[in-house]
Order: sequence, then structure tokens, then C-alpha cells
Amino acid sequence: MKRVGIDLGGTYIKGGIVDEENRIIARGATPTMAEREAEEIIRDMAALVKKLTEEAGITLRDIAGIGIGSPGTIDGGSGKVLYSNNIRWENVPLAEFLGKMLAEDADCGVIKVKVSNDANCAALGELVCDTDSGIRSAVLLTLGTGVGSGIILNGKLYEGEQPGGTELGHMVICHDGRQCSCGRKGCLEAYVSASALVEDARQIARSMEDSVLRVLAGEESTYSPERNQQAAMGELAEKKQDILCGLNGKHVIEAVRQKDPAAVKVFEQYLEYLGCGITNIINIFRPEVIYLGGGICEGFDLMEETLQKYVKENCFGGEIAATAQIKKAAHGNDAGIIGAAALIDLTSH
Amino acid sequence: MKRVGIDLGGTYIKGGIVDEENRIIARGATPTMAEREAEEIIRDMAALVKKLTEEAGITLRDIAGIGIGSPGTIDGGSGKVLYSNNIRWENVPLAEFLGKMLAEDADCGVIKVKVSNDANCAALGELVCDTDSGIRSAVLLTLGTGVGSGIILNGKLYEGEQPGGTELGHMVICHDGRQCSCGRKGCLEAYVSASALVEDARQIARSMEDSVLRVLAGEESTYSPERNQQAAMGELAEKKQDILCGLNGKHVIEAVRQKDPAAVKVFEQYLEYLGCGITNIINIFRPEVIYLGGGICEGFDLMEETLQKYVKENCFGGEIAATAQIKKAAHGNDAGIIGAAALIDLTSH
Repeated sequence: MKRVGIDLGGTYIKGGIVDEENRIIARGATPTMAEREAEEIIRDMAALVKKLTEEAGITLRDIAGIGIGSPGTIDGGSGKVLYSNNIRWENVPLAEFLGKMLAEDADCGVIKVKVSNDANCAALGELVCDTDSGIRSAVLLTLGTGVGSGIILNGKLYEGEQPGGTELGHMVICHDGRQCSCGRKGCLEAYVSASALVEDARQIARSMEDSVLRVLAGEESTYSPERNQQAAMGELAEKKQDILCGLNGKHVIEAVRQKDPAAVKVFEQYLEYLGCGITNIINIFRPEVIYLGGGICEGFDLMEETLQKYVKENCFGGEIAATAQIKKAAHGNDAGIIGAAALIDLTSH
Repeated sequence: MKRVGIDLGGTYIKGGIVDEENRIIARGATPTMAEREAEEIIRDMAALVKKLTEEAGITLRDIAGIGIGSPGTIDGGSGKVLYSNNIRWENVPLAEFLGKMLAEDADCGVIKVKVSNDANCAALGELVCDTDSGIRSAVLLTLGTGVGSGIILNGKLYEGEQPGGTELGHMVICHDGRQCSCGRKGCLEAYVSASALVEDARQIARSMEDSVLRVLAGEESTYSPERNQQAAMGELAEKKQDILCGLNGKHVIEAVRQKDPAAVKVFEQYLEYLGCGITNIINIFRPEVIYLGGGICEGFDLMEETLQKYVKENCFGGEIAATAQIKKAAHGNDAGIIGAAALIDLTSH
């Protein structure tokens, strides 16, 4: 049966009707306007679902259920968003509210609604879309502002034994190391998020006047008339600083492609940390695949060989134990929608 | 039905008949003599099983199966010991061999034999023996020469998605830190094994002449006539060094009880690392219970409060997420036998 998949983000609610072959046959989006009351947002979500079903020429009776990927900490069993900083929700019974709203409007009886963390949904989406269809286990790491993770064990989403989330990004790999947003020091996230990579690149570029990183960040800054004006006013020292503030993950990847020594150095260190985290994950779960997602995976071709070698050399059990294949998460935003739809069948509750 | 549980160690093969209430109703042991061929060792294991059934007044037809906890890396699916440094085995089809030997001798048809890592069995044993019988998930860490681990998810032993073992002791918590026996640097094992604690205590005691650690280690050394003789011969400088070589985990715990400043300092640092590792595990699995086993857990009363506080303050999700209760593994060697027997019902393959 067809299912609805929804990806609830801080800016947009994206949705799709997903068919039996995990293809999105109708899609749409509506602004989240996260400052509103949760119920208002959920009402828009209900409207989106109805719009999508109409577009696909089906009714709510034709769908097996609605899956939602939400940011934050989710209790999958009850379908509650326990806490989300992104959309400022606390203890919102999302599954219950959406189910009721749709049932009221459409008179279609009880509608199955499941909720999970957005990175969990993305992991599930990557797995069900993987062309190597025999895969039953995988871990996804999304390397963005933070590091999200999703774990698939034996073909099903693993959400932990109790509410709170499976947070591989908050596994400490450097005891007493860098401050993490979660309050601990030395979490994987503090070393392998895109933000961490950019910050490291910024640091090194500050002391290297001729780094391509400065040029790339500077080029970007020419788009800002305000900054040009400042420069014209002789605020050159400030502008130097300013240029590096404009640095982003794509710049770092581009600088590595151009073999800029500063960028290469930072990127090698980054891959060392990422290899360390991935090896930990393999020693714990022995999954068949590790998917890496997020914007900086545009540079996946620069990462793959190093990471695969690192893992082979460092995993416990050496030659006799199984390691994992490291793959680029290939389905981007669609994975979030398709994975959310897959919640209907592929969770354990 | 009753089951047989076997704990295969480097020195002894211990076994027991385990009843439906997870009690050992007959028990026995035979020397491993690990230098022998694997088949000889397994033949002794078969003899032990027969002896135990006779003692319990039953036959092989009355048992549901035989579970074996083995050191090393196990492929639970095939019942093979892929590699064990302890007993020098490589690719030994333990389940197949034992099953055949018993079937030949006893003419009882196919006997179910399951094999898992010894720490896995200990974890399962602790869970099924826990008086708080509602527990469905737990992680055991055995703090010994190394750090073993066993993971129970949703009431069943979790052995990883592919062969190689679930090795929480080989999760790096200090990137580029202490050398670990597995080849990596900074593994949990290198910081929270009993050996690591003792080595840390030794280091600090070297520079603290009046530490209780020296006295405790020295007291132990009076049991050695050879050492006394060396001392009598004026080899005092060497003996000083020697005394600290005799230091063990129990001495460290005793010195902490006596509030020896050196021991307390080392132990506080130890608990910090252990708390870090446990918090990582909770952020990954959210188990209901963390069991701590191994000789130094004689000092569990000195650890419990600090660890529980650490975990509460550091787990991801803070107040809204579930943490775990930290308990002493209470069933020692019996857990290995009872857990091995429980393999018959509580694994996923």
C-alpha cells in the first residue's frame, strides 16, 4: 500500500506520497513558521497530507499510514516530540494530534501515524532506496551543523531501548576535548560536523595569508555590497576577519580539490576523527553499510578511500571480522520523506 | 526444559545443568589444557556434559540444548570460534564438533548447540538472574585484564549485524590516547580495565613514598620468600620497584577505602573515564541497566554514586531522556554458565 512521508523541518514541512516501490509519486511543501503554536503547524501538516492525496488521486483510505521525521528527541512508541530546539516543541503528541485532525476531517477511521527523529528517517530512506537491495543493516551519519545519526538493525529502524534517542554524534571520542553543544566535551559532533570542519579551516587560514580558503571565502563575500563598502572605507583588518566568517563547507572541499595545503591539512585531520568515529560504530554494531550525508559529502570522492582504509586497519578483529562499506548518502531530502513513509512497516513498535 | 551452560576459559571448562528458573542444579569443571588440539578439548567438554546430565539424573534427551560461552571472536550464526587468543583457536566449528561428538556417543539425535562470546553470556546471565525481573535491556562491562562487553536488547542477546563481535571496550574515548592491545589508541579498555587502574596507581605511587598503595603491595610481597631474600641481600632499590609490581586491583580499592590520597586521585580519574564510556553507551542504546563486573567491582559501593551522578549530568537529552541504572554484576562465574544456557532461547539466530 501507499504511505505518506513527512519531513518536518525548521523552515518547511515537506511531504510526499510514497508508493510500494519507495518512489515519491506526489510531493509538496508548506512553510513551517515554527514560531506558531504546535497545533497550528500540525493543522497545516494535515492540510498538506490531504492536498497530496488529492494530487495522487487517492484518499486517506488508500494509504497504510503516515510517517513523520521530526527534529529533536522523539518517543517513537507514543509518537510524541519530547523536545525539539529547532521547532521549539516540548512534549507535543504529534502522532495523536495529526491522526485526530485527519480522522475528523476525512471520516476515514483510525489513521496510523508514526514519528521518529529526522536522521532516523533519512537512514531508513537510504537503506530502502539502496540499489544493493540485500542490505539489512546500516548506520547513517549526517555531517551538518551537528551530527545526526540513524541506525538500521536487521532491516528495521533501531530507536534505542528507552526514549531519548540513539545519538552517535554524542559519543565522546576525545575525553575532555572540544566543547559540544550537548554540554559534554569531546563528542564526535564537535569534530566531524560540517561546522567543526569549517571552524578548523578558519583557524588555520587565519595564519596562512595565501591560503585558497581565504580566496574562496573572499569571493563569496563580494556578493555583499555592505562588505565592499566597509573595505572601501579602509576597514581592511576587519575585512580579513570577515572574509573567513563567510567560509563554508563547500569552500573547504573546493580548496582540498585545489590541493591548498591548509585545507588539505585540516581535511586530513577531519578524516582521522571521522575514521575514529566510524570505527567505533563498526566495533559496536558491525553494520554492513555506513552512509555519510550532509553538504560536505559533495567531497565524498575525497573521503572514501582514506576512510575505507582507516576502518580496515583499525576495526577490532582485523582480517577475521566484518567491517562496513562506506557509502555516500545518495538520496538527500527524498530519503527523509521515503524513510518517514517506511516507518509504517520498518519500526519495531 | 533444562539446558546445559558451559563457560570455556583458558584454565577451566566450567559447566552446569540449568533449570527452567535459571538455577544451576548440577555443576562441574575440567581443566582446559589449552595447549592441546581443539578436538581434544571439545571431547573433554562432551565428557563434562555427559557427567553433568548423569549427576542431574537426566539424559541428553531431557535438555533443550547446550550453550557455550567462549573467549574471543565468535560467529554465533555458525557456532564457530573465529579467533581466540586465550585458547589459541582459529576457525574452530565448536558447535558442530560438540554436537556431533555427543550425538555419536549418546544416540540422541540432533543436539542444539549455540556459542557466543563469554562476556555476552555473562550479560545474558546477569539479566535473567536479575531480581528486578521486568528488565529487557542491559549492557554488561567486565572490568578485568581487558574490558569485555555484552549487550541485551529487547530481552535478547545482541551480537552485531555481522561476525566480529560487539566490542564496547574497543570504542575510542580518547583519540590518539593510550595504546590499546587491539592496535588502536585511546580505547575504553586502555582506561577502565582493572589493569589500567592498577598501572595508573603504580605510576602515582612511584612518586609518593608514603602511599598506602606501597604498603598494601608490600604486605602482599611478604608472602614471597624470594623477594624477602632479595631484600635481605640489600637489593632495596629494586625491591621498591618490585613492591609496586605486586600491586593489584584489590589493593587499589582497599587504599581508596583507607582514603589514601594517591589512590583516591587515581580512582577519581578512573571513574571519570568509566563515566564517559558508560554515558556513550547510554547515548547509543538507552539500556535500562548497565552491569559492571570484574574483581574491582568489590569496590562498587565506592563507584555507584559518582557514576550515577555523572551519567545523569552528561547523558544526551538531559531531564527528558531516559538514563540507565548502574548495578554491580552480582552473579560472578554463575552468570557465565546461566547465560550460556540462556543462549538456547535468547539469541536472534
